[in-house]
Amino acid sequence: MDLERVFREHLSSWITQLGPEGDVVLSSRIRLARNLDDILFPSVASEEQLLKGLAMADRFVAKSDRQFKLIRLAGIDEVSRQELVEKHLISPEHAEASPVKGVIVSPAGDISIMVNEEDHLRIQVLKAGLDLHEAYKLADEIDDELAAAMPIAYSPKRGYLTACPTNVGTGLRASVMLHLPGVVYSGQTNQIAGICGKLGLVIRGLYGEGTAPSGEIFQVSNQVTLGYSEEEILTHLTSFCEQIIAEERRLRQYLWESKRDEFEDQVFRALGTLSYARRMSSNEAMELLSRVKLGIDLGIIPKLNSVILKELMVVIRPALLQKIVGQTLGPQERDLTRAGLIRERLSQINS
Amino acid sequence: MDLERVFREHLSSWITQLGPEGDVVLSSRIRLARNLDDILFPSVASEEQLLKGLAMADRFVAKSDRQFKLIRLAGIDEVSRQELVEKHLISPEHAEASPVKGVIVSPAGDISIMVNEEDHLRIQVLKAGLDLHEAYKLADEIDDELAAAMPIAYSPKRGYLTACPTNVGTGLRASVMLHLPGVVYSGQTNQIAGICGKLGLVIRGLYGEGTAPSGEIFQVSNQVTLGYSEEEILTHLTSFCEQIIAEERRLRQYLWESKRDEFEDQVFRALGTLSYARRMSSNEAMELLSRVKLGIDLGIIPKLNSVILKELMVVIRPALLQKIVGQTLGPQERDLTRAGLIRERLSQINS
Repeated sequence: MDLERVFREHLSSWITQLGPEGDVVLSSRIRLARNLDDILFPSVASEEQLLKGLAMADRFVAKSDRQFKLIRLAGIDEVSRQELVEKHLISPEHAEASPVKGVIVSPAGDISIMVNEEDHLRIQVLKAGLDLHEAYKLADEIDDELAAAMPIAYSPKRGYLTACPTNVGTGLRASVMLHLPGVVYSGQTNQIAGICGKLGLVIRGLYGEGTAPSGEIFQVSNQVTLGYSEEEILTHLTSFCEQIIAEERRLRQYLWESKRDEFEDQVFRALGTLSYARRMSSNEAMELLSRVKLGIDLGIIPKLNSVILKELMVVIRPALLQKIVGQTLGPQERDLTRAGLIRERLSQINS
Repeated sequence: MDLERVFREHLSSWITQLGPEGDVVLSSRIRLARNLDDILFPSVASEEQLLKGLAMADRFVAKSDRQFKLIRLAGIDEVSRQELVEKHLISPEHAEASPVKGVIVSPAGDISIMVNEEDHLRIQVLKAGLDLHEAYKLADEIDDELAAAMPIAYSPKRGYLTACPTNVGTGLRASVMLHLPGVVYSGQTNQIAGICGKLGLVIRGLYGEGTAPSGEIFQVSNQVTLGYSEEEILTHLTSFCEQIIAEERRLRQYLWESKRDEFEDQVFRALGTLSYARRMSSNEAMELLSRVKLGIDLGIIPKLNSVILKELMVVIRPALLQKIVGQTLGPQERDLTRAGLIRERLSQINS
């Protein structure tokens, strides 16, 4: 199996590229919360009303030039819904077979619009690396296209109206996914979290709210959406990320220089286990891939490309794994298949 | 560096061969305790008397056709003394710079005669695999040659006189070094030890008395030397070993069949760590080499030869390691060098 080709068929463009500051930043995400006029928010609206919203989305897709596709969550199986979560195209809460839930996706997997999640419409754009402004530019275009196709709830005083008051105003949530092994190994996670809090930012695990960090990956996003312009939010978060990036690089360099032997040993042991193990949980895989990615980014493992590790961090997730091998797999079979897939991909590079 | 050649230069023939039942039995050892007439046992004799014994040993070496060499323990450095222990040519107690202590060794490293250890002379023959009778045959020849060259203390009633009463009689200790991962992983170590006790046998760690087992390696030997003929002692121990071998093979097969996935995973992870780690203690190396050897013996890793693992289990020991690379190394440098040597040897096979 030509895994490079297969992975790229299944993975969004923001995963198969490194992007700016790609040694520390995995991706940037913009989310705009929008609602339709004259329809109650999803949590209180009738199914009939929500289906009306879904029909509007359908018409929007039909008229758009972007080759969008509307996926109805009730129309696909559970593994496919989970796959959308793992690709970060929908939130975990949106992954249920409800007749009113849908998601519009772009062919490259960089744009998605959740229909009838917490808000009627949640536009999301993902970019590789630290690229919030570009992501926002694209989200803003989609927003204009949506607004031309359907009536969006907007108050001149409060801005965009949203189901949750924390989203009112710009309806903008900007997030950056960071790979911070230097911070974690130096025991500075709590310190960084503290600084985030003071700056009106939130730090979370891999899949957003309520999820634990895995593989030293964190999501940082703005907390407040009201009282600041979009530009201010983006600039504030970008400049904070630039500071974290500098700190992370400094810590990596320090660890590497002060504990060279131990560090090199840990990185290569991780590569050895990934190259030889016959069974592997996704948690263990994330830890080891994180360590090897760090080794590549520090130049300890010259042969490998960092983007391959980034791809593997995504394809090893349960649903995507099943999609890639085209089989339904129980948890134990997944552990075997996951180890096999990683071994095969790494051996294709080594040979 | 051609490690295969280098290893073979440094290693005795019983290490570089597998021998009979080589999947379970690493080696067989015969030791005959002998003392000189008219000289007190080493613990109570004067230095002058013991030097007299050493001089006899020197003359014996000069007259022998076996290309023996007499090494005076005071004439070599500490690493070289330790190397003799690691090669099982002398006991740990004999490794001190005493002017009366010596050891006669054969070019192939299969015969050694300790001079002025607990007894004046301790003849030792080592063979690969389960081969007590062949080892005894050779030891018996050496014994005859010694007896022809010097006066050996013998009582028609008690047999050979020895410093410790447990050795009186035949003066024979027969030992077999067994690799018992099946027994260890099945938690049956205590049971086997119990059976040994009932049969008048002793089970010990890698370097004999008082040492803990490492890498699932055990030494089984006869306890009693008086009241049984040499033939009875050898047959008794051989037949007990044949039972352990059968049990060990049965347990390995059972583990392999009942926990196939877990087992295969563990074996390959060990190989991965050995192939990639940058630092390794000798304890960890023994554990991992033991696991990989088991994998080879069960046919899980077809490419590798079991004897390479047996060799590595010996060359990774601190003194031998330094001899092989020709450098004095501190503990941390040894961990780096050990990992490098294992990696290099394994990569020479894989390529």
